[in-house]
Amino acid sequence: MSGERIRETVAAIRPPDNAELAAKILGRLNSLTKPPGSLGKLEDLALRYGLIRGTARPELKRKAMYLFCADHGVTEEGVSPYPAEVTRQMVENFLAGGAAITVLCRHHGIETVIVDMGVRGETAAGVVREKIAGGTRNFTREPAMTREQAERSIETGIRLAHAADAPDVLAAGEMGIGNSTAAAALMSAFTGRDAAECAGRGTGVDDAGLARKVDAIRRGLALHRPDPRDGTGVLAAVGGFEIGAIAGLILGAAAARRMVVLDGFISTSAALIARALAPDSLQYVCFSHLSAERGHRLLLDELGGEPLLSLDMRLGEGSGAALGVGIVEAAVKLYNEMATFAEAGVSDK
Amino acid sequence: MSGERIRETVAAIRPPDNAELAAKILGRLNSLTKPPGSLGKLEDLALRYGLIRGTARPELKRKAMYLFCADHGVTEEGVSPYPAEVTRQMVENFLAGGAAITVLCRHHGIETVIVDMGVRGETAAGVVREKIAGGTRNFTREPAMTREQAERSIETGIRLAHAADAPDVLAAGEMGIGNSTAAAALMSAFTGRDAAECAGRGTGVDDAGLARKVDAIRRGLALHRPDPRDGTGVLAAVGGFEIGAIAGLILGAAAARRMVVLDGFISTSAALIARALAPDSLQYVCFSHLSAERGHRLLLDELGGEPLLSLDMRLGEGSGAALGVGIVEAAVKLYNEMATFAEAGVSDK
Repeated sequence: MSGERIRETVAAIRPPDNAELAAKILGRLNSLTKPPGSLGKLEDLALRYGLIRGTARPELKRKAMYLFCADHGVTEEGVSPYPAEVTRQMVENFLAGGAAITVLCRHHGIETVIVDMGVRGETAAGVVREKIAGGTRNFTREPAMTREQAERSIETGIRLAHAADAPDVLAAGEMGIGNSTAAAALMSAFTGRDAAECAGRGTGVDDAGLARKVDAIRRGLALHRPDPRDGTGVLAAVGGFEIGAIAGLILGAAAARRMVVLDGFISTSAALIARALAPDSLQYVCFSHLSAERGHRLLLDELGGEPLLSLDMRLGEGSGAALGVGIVEAAVKLYNEMATFAEAGVSDK
Repeated sequence: MSGERIRETVAAIRPPDNAELAAKILGRLNSLTKPPGSLGKLEDLALRYGLIRGTARPELKRKAMYLFCADHGVTEEGVSPYPAEVTRQMVENFLAGGAAITVLCRHHGIETVIVDMGVRGETAAGVVREKIAGGTRNFTREPAMTREQAERSIETGIRLAHAADAPDVLAAGEMGIGNSTAAAALMSAFTGRDAAECAGRGTGVDDAGLARKVDAIRRGLALHRPDPRDGTGVLAAVGGFEIGAIAGLILGAAAARRMVVLDGFISTSAALIARALAPDSLQYVCFSHLSAERGHRLLLDELGGEPLLSLDMRLGEGSGAALGVGIVEAAVKLYNEMATFAEAGVSDK
């Protein structure tokens, strides 16, 4: 049975192409009371959203942010300035509404779904319990997880995206001390770039910490030599559980014909896994922002991703994605709610 | 009496500097549950907002978009692909809620104040009547307005920004067929750049229209030779009434210690007038976005403006400013609503 849900989901993904529908959506866009094309990227977004939903009158009512949380064994290598217990503490902060991501989700009316994918220790009530293990293993010594665990983490994301009460737009966020090291390792493994090009300061490591991070990634990849064509295998080699869940959320959203809004470096690294499994899944992704984290620009270029925002943010949690959801919603509202020249009695040129 | 209100307002403007308050705000920013600086430009915005409001616990409850509308005599020169009556028709569209700006203001909970500064013909009920004349004169033949009219248009913006029920944040939008020609003429007059560097396609003129636009600006400026040190005089030479009102809104907001969020090319040209009258007023301005209109990048560079967004928009109306208000509000909410490390019991590094 292992991996079956992933195979089924991948098989169900189709590119959101439909020339007839695209013409219909563009026809409406050009009939609205504005010069043609003058809403720039907002018009591109409205077109993409309609194509993804498969209708010229798409709804965008419910938006949810999936906050996948997990710990990382590689923190033993001194790759983060924060202690590992901060992952669990921040889960409590999410529940209490005091974290950046919870403030931003309230601001934009985005529901939050906090998922314990592998936090060390017990997480409080209110969290969706999908814990695969109490953190990954230290990938400099052994694989971060088993192949079966990697499949389970991806399948969890797929399942959430396919739930009966799934929202119109899904956004991905994460929390996991050490996860910018796992993300940089994924980037290095999938792109062949050296760890020094992939690893950045994350939550703010100093020069010595950054050197330890680069070294840990090099050692881990030298030990496991994961095959970049095997998305699940690369995930198993370096982790993490929350990144696998985001990859699954992308696949599940694509199969369910929903847009998935990604955040910064960590969630974009999950898109590498999704691409390895199903290249067309990327057509359902909205890259919300360009993070200040070092590898993000290169990673977006690798994926052909055009970020909506560039605000020098590097917090993670889904903070850029929450702002991105606000922009997507603005685009869809403009498309749905603006009057046409005929309706408003405005002279066209 | 003429111009007295402008002189009083200019005299009341102080730079929003306060080292003690800045230290207090930065202290709180660095105590919040995130790596220091990781919210990037949102942290800069929160700091600026607190300094402008003069408090370490600033409120941001009410936001209003001022939509200044007026016609332009220079449309006689064939500078726009749309007929001049579209200005009045779009005012109706604003009132009915079918325009891009009204959709975006609903999205962000921004009140709209539609001000008739000089629309040709009668505007409907629901509009704030501040009509100075039924459009400016054709500046290729005579001054767009008298000096007294220029003062009145600036004073109208000042008065609105100082009203007893003025909001916490003011945003500026505009509607006026022909006003990208007036804005480019202002840019050319204030910066000394040739009209060909300042004029863009506006609502979408073709090559011949753009050539007429450049020619009209050159002829107008050759005729009037306005003194760039005389902000009111440049406004009187080329217009328009709505641009003067935005300049006044900037001055009034600065005197009242409120942030004013500008939109694209037209409202940024108004900032040139405000700067000529009171350079410190620019410290109260938030430049919301980089427009796709040709001269905007150069104009922002001239003013030292760093736009928050770059979405290839070129609609005007205040559409970029409305999105910018959403970002400013997010920044202030993060600052006010996030928990500190101590409050949340999260381990700091």
